Amino acid sequence: MTGDPRTILVLGGARSGKSRHAQALAEARSPARVFIATAEAADAEMHARIAQHRADRDATWRTVEAAIALPEAIRAHGAGGDVVLVDCLTLWLSNLLLAEMDLEAAGAALLDATAAATAPIVFVSNEVGFGIVPDNALARRFRDAAGRLNQRLAAQCDATDLVVAGIPLRISPR
Amino acid sequence: MTGDPRTILVLGGARSGKSRHAQALAEARSPARVFIATAEAADAEMHARIAQHRADRDATWRTVEAAIALPEAIRAHGAGGDVVLVDCLTLWLSNLLLAEMDLEAAGAALLDATAAATAPIVFVSNEVGFGIVPDNALARRFRDAAGRLNQRLAAQCDATDLVVAGIPLRISPR
Amino acid sequence: MTGDPRTILVLGGARSGKSRHAQALAEARSPARVFIATAEAADAEMHARIAQHRADRDATWRTVEAAIALPEAIRAHGAGGDVVLVDCLTLWLSNLLLAEMDLEAAGAALLDATAAATAPIVFVSNEVGFGIVPDNALARRFRDAAGRLNQRLAAQCDATDLVVAGIPLRISPR
Repeated sequence: MTGDPRTILVLGGARSGKSRHAQALAEARSPARVFIATAEAADAEMHARIAQHRADRDATWRTVEAAIALPEAIRAHGAGGDVVLVDCLTLWLSNLLLAEMDLEAAGAALLDATAAATAPIVFVSNEVGFGIVPDNALARRFRDAAGRLNQRLAAQCDATDLVVAGIPLRISPR
Repeated sequence: MTGDPRTILVLGGARSGKSRHAQALAEARSPARVFIATAEAADAEMHARIAQHRADRDATWRTVEAAIALPEAIRAHGAGGDVVLVDCLTLWLSNLLLAEMDLEAAGAALLDATAAATAPIVFVSNEVGFGIVPDNALARRFRDAAGRLNQRLAAQCDATDLVVAGIPLRISPR
Repeated sequence: MTGDPRTILVLGGARSGKSRHAQALAEARSPARVFIATAEAADAEMHARIAQHRADRDATWRTVEAAIALPEAIRAHGAGGDVVLVDCLTLWLSNLLLAEMDLEAAGAALLDATAAATAPIVFVSNEVGFGIVPDNALARRFRDAAGRLNQRLAAQCDATDLVVAGIPLRISPR
């Protein structure tokens, strides 16, 4: 591959600095920027997080909300040259799970939309599988689905970064 | 060290692709393959996982079950040239803990059997220590034992890989 | 940067070997050594861990306890040439949280004390954000605070190591 990677997956733990790194990657690519937010402000805690993230972005960013219809949003905004930042896949999966959607089909639709896009896309996702096995079955289903989606997307993206304590590590291609 | 590492430890989180990577490493080493399974099909969820893993391997693999007697299985199958794949150490530890066995002694027996073997061996193990401290004491004991075993085995193995989102990283030797 | 890093952050999961690696780093720097312990022996389990860690250090180490007043301890012991080992920041944060202290202000005081010191300092901290979202709000607050502190300290330290299964990986500078 020559030149910049078109699609980049940014993985990290909670509060690892992955969103900030992904934003910096996106801002280096294009002055025209679309932020696809998958978060829903279901409670005060989440509302505060969303507001903080929004305040971290300036007016060069357009914000689109896609709590469920993420593949559709990527098709709508990924056909031009604007850089697209998707933050984050883990919340999207969580929304799908709560809505009792088909996670495998949704993942396939996401991969298809990504392959069909022409825009540079940066995805943010949580790595959630490095703790002990969760007690409840729903959490295990979520963790399995998140791991599978991260694997599938990493295999398709041109580059994957792992962020640890704010330090981005390019783990593929090495 | 020259040539291929004889013993490799493959670490990863849940659904990280560590089993698939370990299988690929083993298949590259020898056409004669022994799979040592530590899983017990105690419930339907686990039964489905085991069946899926077995379906991922073809007829070139012989499968041996060793939920507790893993050191003995390594001695029995590690004396020839067939490659041995052990999947996974974390379930084995869990089985030992539930059976109230001596975890330190079992770990030492595993290391001894590994040192005495002549076959290439690939071990799969979960990295489980990157979450917050678990609420209950049993989970903490398990986490501590898993961390200690991973350390001891990594120190003895010729190579250690960490798998993140399906991407294998050789972390030792670098 | 030329020469040895003055300040090093050592990150790792539970039972990853991070304390042992940090101790080795410190012992390579100076024969005069101060260990700043943030652990409080609140129960038997913690008491046993502290005793084990203390037994791992020889008489060349002086031990200072700073469950809360860590910035002050760094100012007191970081003005000379003795190497200072702080183990660990995660327990310190936990102590602050239980004491209902201002975590942001404490983090800023830690960074200031570190910048003002002249001694080599090695910090040990847990990476705790790679599991699924904890059920309770206090655990989430803790996880967020730990992640933020790790990021801030990594940005200020001259080097950061991630320890996995006893294997230290220098993740910054690369």
